[in-house]
Amino acid sequence: MRTISSGENRIFRVCEQLTHKKYRDKLGMYLIEGENLLEEAVKNGAEIKTVLARQDYGGSFYGSDDKVFYLSDRLFDRLSQTETSQGVIAAVKKPEFSQEEFTDKNDCSNYVVLDRLQDPGNIGTIIRTADAAGYGLIIAMKGTADVFSPKAVRAATGSLFRMPVVFMDSVDELMEFTRAAGKKLAATCFDTDRYYYDEDLRENIALIIGNEGGGISRELMESSDLKIKIPMHGNIESLNASVAAGILMYEAVRPRNIR
Amino acid sequence: MRTISSGENRIFRVCEQLTHKKYRDKLGMYLIEGENLLEEAVKNGAEIKTVLARQDYGGSFYGSDDKVFYLSDRLFDRLSQTETSQGVIAAVKKPEFSQEEFTDKNDCSNYVVLDRLQDPGNIGTIIRTADAAGYGLIIAMKGTADVFSPKAVRAATGSLFRMPVVFMDSVDELMEFTRAAGKKLAATCFDTDRYYYDEDLRENIALIIGNEGGGISRELMESSDLKIKIPMHGNIESLNASVAAGILMYEAVRPRNIR
Repeated sequence: MRTISSGENRIFRVCEQLTHKKYRDKLGMYLIEGENLLEEAVKNGAEIKTVLARQDYGGSFYGSDDKVFYLSDRLFDRLSQTETSQGVIAAVKKPEFSQEEFTDKNDCSNYVVLDRLQDPGNIGTIIRTADAAGYGLIIAMKGTADVFSPKAVRAATGSLFRMPVVFMDSVDELMEFTRAAGKKLAATCFDTDRYYYDEDLRENIALIIGNEGGGISRELMESSDLKIKIPMHGNIESLNASVAAGILMYEAVRPRNIR
Repeated sequence: MRTISSGENRIFRVCEQLTHKKYRDKLGMYLIEGENLLEEAVKNGAEIKTVLARQDYGGSFYGSDDKVFYLSDRLFDRLSQTETSQGVIAAVKKPEFSQEEFTDKNDCSNYVVLDRLQDPGNIGTIIRTADAAGYGLIIAMKGTADVFSPKAVRAATGSLFRMPVVFMDSVDELMEFTRAAGKKLAATCFDTDRYYYDEDLRENIALIIGNEGGGISRELMESSDLKIKIPMHGNIESLNASVAAGILMYEAVRPRNIR
């Protein structure tokens, strides 16, 4: 049993750096916490670099035993991001995808576009829902909070091991990509007569989910092929971003509404 | 301008007590924080008892000026539950509803049943979505986390001023109530062939949302009139509770799917 007892240890220090986005980007790795996520990571073939366990961890390592190091409670707590930790954290290689992999026009799956979302809980929850709804890709626009932050990873509950994510810097880049992939950009807005169930959102849709406060950027809105709205009773102006995304994404799952 | 400078002040102490469920129950009040919620409270006719503002608060009191007390930063911070507070908190009377108000069979609206949900963010978000989807009532089963906790209130974004909430101690009580109100109890489970879009969920439904970890209680499941499931791709076992609730609740809004 290998134990790390010093905060100066190289392996520990790399993992501690991964609590910051800067180093996740630089090192191409991120942290997952908890036995369930470790199991999902192994099951989905994620590349596990290091596993750090608290001395009292009694769960399984799912075959990643040769990468395990034990930590003192004090060191473990420096990494842990949850209040009641199960006592296991792993550093996992970020998957990398090129845009070219997703421009095959035989793939009719829907994509979701995260337009500068800020809440990591929303980001993770949307990735989880996209996975459940059979979506093919997550596109994170520049300005979106880190998809691989501990909170987003937790909210995604394993879906980050399955859902590919690509990053885009501009609306132009997005437009070029969605055209090549044969996807229609769909945006929610107030200024439309079309409800979401009036359109066929089952395939070849790139659904934009806008920033929690400001919504979808004007440039992206103007570039959209479909503008839809979710009806709301009374004086409500908006739904929670994850909930709105869930309602819209599940249009891909249900049989077509014949009116 | 009246200022409270001591933590022993009676008005301040009452508001501080309201950060605890025990006192919210005992005193029949709860706290709201932020200018938006204060505006919504006034607009929706909530009974505002006290408004506490940080010295630097520059927003409006929406006519509740005679109830305003200013606090030092130190005292204000003891009450504030948000990281970047706008500097205004109010104590609001909890609305009270009797079950009899909701057993009018001419009201076809749907109800939502919270079955021991624990995450205040989920609770608030579900109340917000229920409001947007035109639901008529929230039923909180015994064991559900406090609907009036600061986090739930924040996530509900004003919908708690509009959505009535009643509390029930047992499945028997719930069954008696839903029968009197003419509502069918609908539960999600794995063990059914019916998808949510196979049933007509537009009216007279009491939709049960189960505990985040354990789902719907067995007793409640066995008492349900409709058992439905949400299809999920791949190996996903569940959706986030707020998202699942949103997808199901919005069945009440869309035109009936004719298959």
